[in-house]
Amino acid sequence: MQISKYPEKNTWSELIKRPVIKREEIAEIVEEIFNKVKENGDQALIDFNKKFDGAEVKNINISLEEIENAESLISDELKSAIQKAKENITKFHVSQNVEIEKIETTKGVICWRENRAIDKVGIYIPGGTAPLFSTVLMLAIPAKLAGCKEIILCTPPDKNGNINPAIFYTAKLCGVTKIFKTGGAQAVAAMTFGTESIPNVYKVFGPGNQFVVAAKEYAQNFGVSIDMPAGPSEVLVIADEKAVPAFCSADLLSQAEHGSDSQVIFISIDVKIFNETIKEIEKQIKELPRNEYVQESLKNSHFILLETIEEAVEFSNLYAPEHLILAIEDFENSISKIQNAGSVFLGNYSCESAGDYASGTNHTLPTNGFAKNYSGVSLDSFVKKITFQHLSKEGLQNLAKTIEIMAEAEGLFAHKNAVSIRLNQDNERI
Amino acid sequence: MQISKYPEKNTWSELIKRPVIKREEIAEIVEEIFNKVKENGDQALIDFNKKFDGAEVKNINISLEEIENAESLISDELKSAIQKAKENITKFHVSQNVEIEKIETTKGVICWRENRAIDKVGIYIPGGTAPLFSTVLMLAIPAKLAGCKEIILCTPPDKNGNINPAIFYTAKLCGVTKIFKTGGAQAVAAMTFGTESIPNVYKVFGPGNQFVVAAKEYAQNFGVSIDMPAGPSEVLVIADEKAVPAFCSADLLSQAEHGSDSQVIFISIDVKIFNETIKEIEKQIKELPRNEYVQESLKNSHFILLETIEEAVEFSNLYAPEHLILAIEDFENSISKIQNAGSVFLGNYSCESAGDYASGTNHTLPTNGFAKNYSGVSLDSFVKKITFQHLSKEGLQNLAKTIEIMAEAEGLFAHKNAVSIRLNQDNERI
Repeated sequence: MQISKYPEKNTWSELIKRPVIKREEIAEIVEEIFNKVKENGDQALIDFNKKFDGAEVKNINISLEEIENAESLISDELKSAIQKAKENITKFHVSQNVEIEKIETTKGVICWRENRAIDKVGIYIPGGTAPLFSTVLMLAIPAKLAGCKEIILCTPPDKNGNINPAIFYTAKLCGVTKIFKTGGAQAVAAMTFGTESIPNVYKVFGPGNQFVVAAKEYAQNFGVSIDMPAGPSEVLVIADEKAVPAFCSADLLSQAEHGSDSQVIFISIDVKIFNETIKEIEKQIKELPRNEYVQESLKNSHFILLETIEEAVEFSNLYAPEHLILAIEDFENSISKIQNAGSVFLGNYSCESAGDYASGTNHTLPTNGFAKNYSGVSLDSFVKKITFQHLSKEGLQNLAKTIEIMAEAEGLFAHKNAVSIRLNQDNERI
Repeated sequence: MQISKYPEKNTWSELIKRPVIKREEIAEIVEEIFNKVKENGDQALIDFNKKFDGAEVKNINISLEEIENAESLISDELKSAIQKAKENITKFHVSQNVEIEKIETTKGVICWRENRAIDKVGIYIPGGTAPLFSTVLMLAIPAKLAGCKEIILCTPPDKNGNINPAIFYTAKLCGVTKIFKTGGAQAVAAMTFGTESIPNVYKVFGPGNQFVVAAKEYAQNFGVSIDMPAGPSEVLVIADEKAVPAFCSADLLSQAEHGSDSQVIFISIDVKIFNETIKEIEKQIKELPRNEYVQESLKNSHFILLETIEEAVEFSNLYAPEHLILAIEDFENSISKIQNAGSVFLGNYSCESAGDYASGTNHTLPTNGFAKNYSGVSLDSFVKKITFQHLSKEGLQNLAKTIEIMAEAEGLFAHKNAVSIRLNQDNERI
């Protein structure tokens, strides 16, 4: 825990620094994995399952039996919770669908945009310590709403070759079309090139370790697009005198729980709340099972005292946090000042967990300062917007001079001619 | 000109192939340029101006005098044309601004998205044979509408150290904040790292040669985002018996005029129109000043006869053209079937030049098959969408069980605790 009391602004650039990611070594390993998957297809994935996940898997395809069994393996309580979350996520993402609006920019010239789903998308779900079925919800629901025809999911098997049944259940519920037992950079490679079993896709989504992140970036060299670049998860909490230290502490710890590289920043403008939150952390941390991650992550966390909410928001805009919690009374007044953030939680009852699971917003958000230039995942992430235009003869006449003069000034005479020839009487056949 | 009459579907994958881009050599050169710019700042740019553009430029900054002179150097006719284009582009891009819609996903749980401009953006405008002031319109107008605070423009000087006055005029008209005399990969490096004169930006836009394209991709390693990956410009024209060969030919030639690597595809379902269009090309080509590009580009062009419009659209979706012209009578019926395209031009009077300059749509579009997974530039390209959420105490109560069950099933107890602690009576201070 690094404490800074009223730091000078010229020291802020140090405080907002993220851990540096070692790129080169990883890049080489990823390239090698891509080459193997391209050459050996499914067999490469089976070999990597053994090598990296210690799993003996004869077939990366999921059997019908496994999917059917999944339903009986999870509690009705969990099923209901997943369904409720699905309902809210659906409501919020449906609302992102914009009606087609045709604009007549000049008389006879009509322009508009229409959404078209990205035909084939791939979702990566990490294995490891937490089975992230919530991420299945966050990616498969908008993919299905957008109308993607192929929605495939890759996730690594555990040592026994199994996948958590909650992932199966959620994937089936949300319209995933195919699931495969493969993880890491090799899964991304498989979705990029395709294998005997796995279809190639046009866009890859989902979180992962540094190899998965590097693999997604590398995949872009082969025409695949990705949801966004990524780094460790982060939260920044801003608290005033009306904040509740126990709540702030719980939010900071829930972020720290994600992994030892999670980024946690706490800013208060009130000394009492500041000190009490630190005490609360020491108290609450003892109760947590993922203690080792939390301890590690807190070592790099910053606890900062500032003078005003304006300053705190300024700091936050500079840091550009993935999650921003405004545990302040007059949050309404700060909304318009927030320039860079992935998702913002307003007031004392809007905990990050709500957005992580069930409020309806997407939890796939820009980290590592990318909130300066990227949005989180939304319905838009699964579509392209195609522009259409129709010019009547009158429409073209109205624009002809403008186009001809500009084309000529750019030295593009064939561009000019495409207009002139249409308005030349001799060519009128229609 | 490569002619294919009723090709079998299993040969289509050959017909849609783009020219392969040599990546490795270029990547090395770009990396070296980035290193030099990072080390030597402005001086590196001055050196590269001399080396690559043969221009002796003492200062990469533009003088006030140069900008003021520009206005007197271009005709009133061109000024009016640029203004008219600006008006239409503004109308269409303003319409892309979506009202904030707050969604109550569960009673007491309110979620919404708000646009925030990307603070600092950079526009690259190529020099060379055509002074692309139209691209200044296409990028600076939405940047200004989005509210970007810093909109910088880099463009290479000619041999005399000058910039085309139409670029100055358009940049000033559209709210560009700073202009610099630097081009190629070095300009992209300067916008990525910043130099003494050039501020670093968060997102880089604009077309360029293969070095600029590679530089934009490389810039992403340093946290900068880009409008989209790129390749040579393309058009695909679909013509039925009501198409006008002279118009089709003019459209194909206007694409071929862009550069010797431009991609031109003509599909007809009518033999007469097919043959006449080929004849028209031979006729019209003689009149064009940029003849050498056109000849070269036509060598790789495909002229394809197919049976039906459905087949033609199917081919087009597979090719995913940057520009698609439907020179067919019943274009209305085909709109919903178009799955992959950048911008679509409907009917005999909607020539690509209209969209290139003045109809209002953006001309920065996905090439090289990227229309499968990327949209063209729009207002959205200059903003991030931030999600906000507010849960009242009642709202959190309504979602509590759902969140707690899911968090526990994912093994994330601190996430669960962030909810539980808020609903525990002892913690109620507010």
